[in-house]
Amino acid sequence: MEAALRELRQRLAEVSDLSRSAGVLGWDQRVTMPVRGTEARAEQLATLARIAHERFTDAQIGRLLDTLTPHVESLPYDSDEASLVRVTRRDWEKARRVPVELREQLTRAAARGHNAWVEARARSDFASFLPYLRENLELRRRYAECFEPDDVLYTALLDDFEPGMTTTEVADVFAVLAPALRDLVAGAPTVDATFLHGHFDPGAQRAFAERILATLGFEEGSWRLDPTAHPFCTSFSNRDVRLTTRYNERDLESVWSSLHEAGHGLYAHGIAGALERSPLAGAPSLGLNESQSRTWENLVGRSRPFWEHWYEPLRATFPDQLDGVELDAFVRAINRAEPGLIRVDADETTYSLHVILRFELEQAMLAQEIALEDLPEAWNARMSELLGVDVPDDGRGVLQDVHWSGGGFGYFPTYALGNVISLQIWSVVRAALPDLDAQLAAGELRPLSDWLRDNLYALGRKLTPKETLARVTGSDAIDPGPYLAYLGAKLDGLRT
Amino acid sequence: MEAALRELRQRLAEVSDLSRSAGVLGWDQRVTMPVRGTEARAEQLATLARIAHERFTDAQIGRLLDTLTPHVESLPYDSDEASLVRVTRRDWEKARRVPVELREQLTRAAARGHNAWVEARARSDFASFLPYLRENLELRRRYAECFEPDDVLYTALLDDFEPGMTTTEVADVFAVLAPALRDLVAGAPTVDATFLHGHFDPGAQRAFAERILATLGFEEGSWRLDPTAHPFCTSFSNRDVRLTTRYNERDLESVWSSLHEAGHGLYAHGIAGALERSPLAGAPSLGLNESQSRTWENLVGRSRPFWEHWYEPLRATFPDQLDGVELDAFVRAINRAEPGLIRVDADETTYSLHVILRFELEQAMLAQEIALEDLPEAWNARMSELLGVDVPDDGRGVLQDVHWSGGGFGYFPTYALGNVISLQIWSVVRAALPDLDAQLAAGELRPLSDWLRDNLYALGRKLTPKETLARVTGSDAIDPGPYLAYLGAKLDGLRT
Repeated sequence: MEAALRELRQRLAEVSDLSRSAGVLGWDQRVTMPVRGTEARAEQLATLARIAHERFTDAQIGRLLDTLTPHVESLPYDSDEASLVRVTRRDWEKARRVPVELREQLTRAAARGHNAWVEARARSDFASFLPYLRENLELRRRYAECFEPDDVLYTALLDDFEPGMTTTEVADVFAVLAPALRDLVAGAPTVDATFLHGHFDPGAQRAFAERILATLGFEEGSWRLDPTAHPFCTSFSNRDVRLTTRYNERDLESVWSSLHEAGHGLYAHGIAGALERSPLAGAPSLGLNESQSRTWENLVGRSRPFWEHWYEPLRATFPDQLDGVELDAFVRAINRAEPGLIRVDADETTYSLHVILRFELEQAMLAQEIALEDLPEAWNARMSELLGVDVPDDGRGVLQDVHWSGGGFGYFPTYALGNVISLQIWSVVRAALPDLDAQLAAGELRPLSDWLRDNLYALGRKLTPKETLARVTGSDAIDPGPYLAYLGAKLDGLRT
Repeated sequence: MEAALRELRQRLAEVSDLSRSAGVLGWDQRVTMPVRGTEARAEQLATLARIAHERFTDAQIGRLLDTLTPHVESLPYDSDEASLVRVTRRDWEKARRVPVELREQLTRAAARGHNAWVEARARSDFASFLPYLRENLELRRRYAECFEPDDVLYTALLDDFEPGMTTTEVADVFAVLAPALRDLVAGAPTVDATFLHGHFDPGAQRAFAERILATLGFEEGSWRLDPTAHPFCTSFSNRDVRLTTRYNERDLESVWSSLHEAGHGLYAHGIAGALERSPLAGAPSLGLNESQSRTWENLVGRSRPFWEHWYEPLRATFPDQLDGVELDAFVRAINRAEPGLIRVDADETTYSLHVILRFELEQAMLAQEIALEDLPEAWNARMSELLGVDVPDDGRGVLQDVHWSGGGFGYFPTYALGNVISLQIWSVVRAALPDLDAQLAAGELRPLSDWLRDNLYALGRKLTPKETLARVTGSDAIDPGPYLAYLGAKLDGLRT
């Protein structure tokens, strides 16, 4: 049994090394690669993905899992060994269903699609992006067809990001959210935020963001922050975490964008070292991962206590722009609800409505209920219904997000689920850390990040998303109640 | 035959993708990686190297080469197909001779040796480095014994960097160089260069370097320049070239360091697209590759015509530091010969003497003609003879270079061969481009880089180093004459 476990670990470590290597190539492509490197990079990524897939789906891994399963059943359910065998089997059986050639095509189409999207968005030219979208969608449909989901085909795509969750379950949560959020937005008070728009030197924004991030709880020399077009976070080990952000000289959004990615980064950073180079080194689902980016961006980064510490440094950085703006006015402005065109610029209240729109359109695309040519029109119509805004061009509409360019259908719902879950976990945090507000007001973020690391991040993928949620909160149900209550109370508090 | 060729190309493309991916990880490690990422990165690189080696040495590649050899013999010698089969067979047979265990020992010893060297150099403590040097040398001897060189064992090490060249041939070239260079250095005039030392803003240096590099002939969007501790150049395709440099605020060396790496980069950029993802996508030898870094650093970058165009922009960038310094004085200063202790800081004239010293000692070490304990003494004695300088401590003497700590014996000679070859090719360039000086003086570098691309870089590794030299210059002999004549004329020109 020792020998089998050693061999399994060794084989999985090799697969992990290949995947992490592909991660480095992907980060480089989005942060530093010269644009003409795209074609070769697509080949390199395809080769790494193919070899990783071949090695992971090797029949010998199945034999090792068969050998080990009876042995680990006597170990605690959440032991590293039992979890490794259980989670690897689930991943292995999923991976075996997808032909190598299809995986390769998906990877290559994603690399090509990304580049086409960058150009198309810049020119607001949906037609030039259409063939890439069509190719990615078609490949993704073939991918979904490799599985046998309980309800609709879309669930197979969702499962990659939110394992074990069905389309029906998500639709049920969103059916509660959509009308409640529309009502909240409709009734939200108007708040002056003109001072958040002006000229904010990107270099000064960068220095300020790095200053905050250094206090979050990352070990020194284990992370970095770089500018990119579409911010993301990735990691190549729990001690090599890459945060990205973008600096718009007209606003201060980089502060919250950086905190958002840092939330993902703290998750990756907090995963137990014993799980490194194994399939357990990750978050159980994107929803749980997103719950933490939202925690740091919103629950921490828009809270009054946090700014009691950080507002003076911010005002010292941008004295002209924030001249005469008191803390209360600033906190109200960054918490206002105001419908807009862009998901990544959306406030906490309107954000999930952007997601619900994408969830609806993705289902329609996959079920071929909508012609792709008609996507911009459908997008614009639904934006008007859900958020009451008119979309002036596709660059600020259907082309705004990177996801579809890489075949990332089924991903968006996790953002809204993350909002919902973040409040379920936050309720527990509040009870566990009674002095949290005072700590935030003193600029002490370590007690919070330590608690989240010890109680959530360190678990990695040992438990399923629902098991993880139950471990932290006591219940495995996704409950929009705390999120809606939080938003309601917050918006009420904005009235002066 | 078509099927065999296709399979061979596919297998080689995969190996190339793995090596290029490792290249991305290596670049990232040296340019952007947070320091705590080191441990995981070493595992990732080891996995990529192991898989690439396994796949390249696969017996099936040998069978495909056997199948293809008779067919490609009817094709032109320098056709892509015949070259691919011929060069791959040479690489494959070399790679198969080295047992996997020895490769692993070499890798481990190199890692240990590097760490020991960093400490030993900092403390100038040769004794602490000695056991690691001994281990690396012993393993490298066993590596050399895997081959059957024509003359001495050292040739087997040289062959990794300068394929097909013997120790005897190198010694013959250096036997001409050593006394001639000593005479040149001894007779070199003293030139004032105090204005090259002062304060030069790194940001301004960076902007200036990028401005020059943009005119060299790189296609836009196919290269980038980043700062690093020890400058190098790498590429992940001929359209993804990564130059690095360092900015020392006390001097302007970044200009020539950047041009040096750009010379390597232009080589990689000029390799024919048809050779991509194959063993032919590279330079035939380090000497030829170095000849081009030296061409752009020295033959272009220290020439009067080049600075007739670029000196005014430089002076506009650093007006205080270069106040009152006329073009003539500047060109004299950057061409002066001045013996020093450190190879990487050496000027064009003294540089090869540093290399000759290392070549002599390496041979003596490998032939066990010198006790390793006596190495510092031998080093210091020879530095005095060749360069007339006294070595104050081992940190600035025998411990100054990284190469031996990782078993990199046989590499140094290629630096001096590059100097020699650069002038052999330059003579041909001068004849082919009669207006070269006028073009350089007008800031037009494209005619030169186009000529070098079409006549040298595009060939990749299709021909051996000697065949390549013969193709470009008409002779396959390495002739120090043009290099010595160039230096002599240059130093004469320094006298005012």
